[in-house]
Amino acid sequence: MVSKEPTDEALRSLIDHFPKSSLLISKEDLIPYSFDATATFYQPPLAVLFPSSIADIQWILQWAKANHACILPRGSGTSLSGAVVPQKNSIVLSMAKWNKILEIDRNNLTILVEPGVTTQSVQEEADKLSLFYPPDPGSYKISTIGGNVGHNSGGIRGLKYGVTRNYVLGLEVILPTGQLLWLGNKCMKDSAGYSLKDLFIGSEGTLGIVSKVLLRLIPKPQERQVILASFSTLEAAAEATSAIINAALIPSALEFLDRKTIDCIEQYNPAGFPKESEAVLLIESDGHPQAVRDEIVCILKVLQLYNPLDIKIAEEPKEQEQLWKARKVAFSALARKAPTVLLEDITVPRSALAEMIRKIQQISSQYGVEIAVYAHMGDGNLHPVFLADEQNEDLMEKVYRAMKEIFLYAIKLGGTITGEHGVGLAKKEFLAYQYNKEEFQLLKSIKKILDPDNLLNPGKIFD
Amino acid sequence: MVSKEPTDEALRSLIDHFPKSSLLISKEDLIPYSFDATATFYQPPLAVLFPSSIADIQWILQWAKANHACILPRGSGTSLSGAVVPQKNSIVLSMAKWNKILEIDRNNLTILVEPGVTTQSVQEEADKLSLFYPPDPGSYKISTIGGNVGHNSGGIRGLKYGVTRNYVLGLEVILPTGQLLWLGNKCMKDSAGYSLKDLFIGSEGTLGIVSKVLLRLIPKPQERQVILASFSTLEAAAEATSAIINAALIPSALEFLDRKTIDCIEQYNPAGFPKESEAVLLIESDGHPQAVRDEIVCILKVLQLYNPLDIKIAEEPKEQEQLWKARKVAFSALARKAPTVLLEDITVPRSALAEMIRKIQQISSQYGVEIAVYAHMGDGNLHPVFLADEQNEDLMEKVYRAMKEIFLYAIKLGGTITGEHGVGLAKKEFLAYQYNKEEFQLLKSIKKILDPDNLLNPGKIFD
Repeated sequence: MVSKEPTDEALRSLIDHFPKSSLLISKEDLIPYSFDATATFYQPPLAVLFPSSIADIQWILQWAKANHACILPRGSGTSLSGAVVPQKNSIVLSMAKWNKILEIDRNNLTILVEPGVTTQSVQEEADKLSLFYPPDPGSYKISTIGGNVGHNSGGIRGLKYGVTRNYVLGLEVILPTGQLLWLGNKCMKDSAGYSLKDLFIGSEGTLGIVSKVLLRLIPKPQERQVILASFSTLEAAAEATSAIINAALIPSALEFLDRKTIDCIEQYNPAGFPKESEAVLLIESDGHPQAVRDEIVCILKVLQLYNPLDIKIAEEPKEQEQLWKARKVAFSALARKAPTVLLEDITVPRSALAEMIRKIQQISSQYGVEIAVYAHMGDGNLHPVFLADEQNEDLMEKVYRAMKEIFLYAIKLGGTITGEHGVGLAKKEFLAYQYNKEEFQLLKSIKKILDPDNLLNPGKIFD
Repeated sequence: MVSKEPTDEALRSLIDHFPKSSLLISKEDLIPYSFDATATFYQPPLAVLFPSSIADIQWILQWAKANHACILPRGSGTSLSGAVVPQKNSIVLSMAKWNKILEIDRNNLTILVEPGVTTQSVQEEADKLSLFYPPDPGSYKISTIGGNVGHNSGGIRGLKYGVTRNYVLGLEVILPTGQLLWLGNKCMKDSAGYSLKDLFIGSEGTLGIVSKVLLRLIPKPQERQVILASFSTLEAAAEATSAIINAALIPSALEFLDRKTIDCIEQYNPAGFPKESEAVLLIESDGHPQAVRDEIVCILKVLQLYNPLDIKIAEEPKEQEQLWKARKVAFSALARKAPTVLLEDITVPRSALAEMIRKIQQISSQYGVEIAVYAHMGDGNLHPVFLADEQNEDLMEKVYRAMKEIFLYAIKLGGTITGEHGVGLAKKEFLAYQYNKEEFQLLKSIKKILDPDNLLNPGKIFD
């Protein structure tokens, strides 16, 4: 709820303070900053500021506090939870131009970057030195590291390599007061005081503005191989996944695509996914060449127990690339199939994958809502994709109810309403089902000590 | 500062509430709970309670709040920072008997334990299922998981496998108000709200009482090999370490022992460490057999560049065990050499290892204080060991000044005053050098929202 807004005089002082090239205020210019990658949310901000210094950020924080405005830090706006959707009184603080790689420290295997550097740039810089930055969100080509930190982004390599949190060694953060913190260091171990850094990771821009990020890099795996396995039922694919984990095999990726997703991909960007199958698994093993070969053999043995329709092994980089490209267009391919496409993001314990997928199918029939599913199956992270139509109120009501039932079932299975997209606007209503009253209160208390005036991205995660 | 203490009447109510077998109050019984593994601290508590239920813990929290007492959760008391040293008005809450393994979930590769379970028990349970729990603090045979969580314990495998934080999936925590939180789940990814779990890890019992811990297990490495390399200078060993990291080789352990430590070990538990060397590196590679063999070859190539006096490879488990046993008695062996032995715990970026070790040598001569050094070198975590004498005030003053200079130099190099032992009582004075004023204030604010009455382990980390 925005009760007050900046006065015309206040807006004048804002416009006067910054050069024209740093501030967008015209209606048309604000349009691209009125939404993120989440369907259904749209709200133009008051202005967009491209700060050129820490001092600019400190100034705008003070201005916002004095003038009933709030601040929304933004990278590329690829959030899938509405975390980067403005309020009417928001100043969008675009960090996209803070895109310098500040240091690559080969001796400590670290990289220090500004928050606007893309995930892909970090991956490429690491690669040049035969190093590896594993986090790999779907939007890696344009998503920024600042946004990745804000959402604790994951991707396809979570099961073996973890998520953004596991690679953040240090953060420079500007608090709403304008105070500058440096949290962390290049050390591999640090037990000095509470881990403040971890509070900011995944906080969706609600606690502080990240202005530098120190990341850990790891040795680059020498080799990779990819298996494509197709199944006649969704459950066989889910059970095969659980069996692979149970066998303590941890491939570098273990992706799942259901028939709807496969069909869309094949229409959009044909990759030879077997069309007659109900589900495919795309499994990658990486590491030492002999270790990869041995792991592939073990995985194939497990897969055979679940009656696959077909199994292909892609040993050549080109063939692998083609499969991965197909997988990575899954959302774009599905997005073409309906006027409004909602990408969800539950995660469940890996033993519960078959049950969760069964439940999604059942909910889909029950509500008459079309749901495609693709998943980072190996880490239990499912993306149910709702094919809907914003103009159809009746359908949207069904989608809402189906979605809620899926969230509640994921929680019941010991899961979470979001594995990697964050809560944002889209899921804040459901967060209270995952946390008990005290836990929820604690989240709010932390927001309150860090941002007592509710200046930073208010209304996200919780009200 | 303890201004008030419980009245006799209050103590009576405490004694009346619990069965005799659950409460220690006699002077002699309190002695073992008056100190931890840190030299120089000693303070008997008011009483020791062995709670038999969550309700007992909730009761004692209320009682402490009403009666000017405080609560000190304790596992095996192996803390090396004085984190488990009581105040006069402390009730020690011994969680040592909460030592049940509650669930091993082979399908999700997790283990749920009570906080009093030892690190070794978790390692052994994992091993039975061909799984692996890597954190391996020096006191692993008796240290408890609750204590490991409280200190974010590390050990020798930090460089490849990380520390306790990297394995904690969930925590049941009792807040000072008695409220019960469950933070985390069996999911490999979770972006739902701030990571409260990470606040409690490493909080040294100052924010909540951990009553259950859910840990992640990983596949057990198939094979291991150990290299013992000796050098004629400390710096050569330090530079060889940095070079190994620079070559993006990440062995499972990379330990360093200086001459003083080697001599003590050889007197205490002869393992054939070469006596004529100034420093040895003990390097372990683990994983797929061929990957291990190849990694060993690469490591040997790097080592050769630093003119080692001697290199041995221990391929046989028995030989490896002997070397590791010798390494693991390092502190016990050194502890015999002086009336008071202080084990410190700085960590520096790995590029700064040679410089830090040079500085420690220089400080040792400058102050006339004997300092041995052993280190988890591969993750930059150095343990300078001060051979001192508590009865010798003049010497203790020099030790204090030398120690402070070492801490400040580690911070100057971008390091931390504690890699894995925590801050406790021993280092709280120095924490303010590592954090700026705002960061320090933030630590205190977090304590205040979680423990407004300062009931839980007051006076640790900061005042």
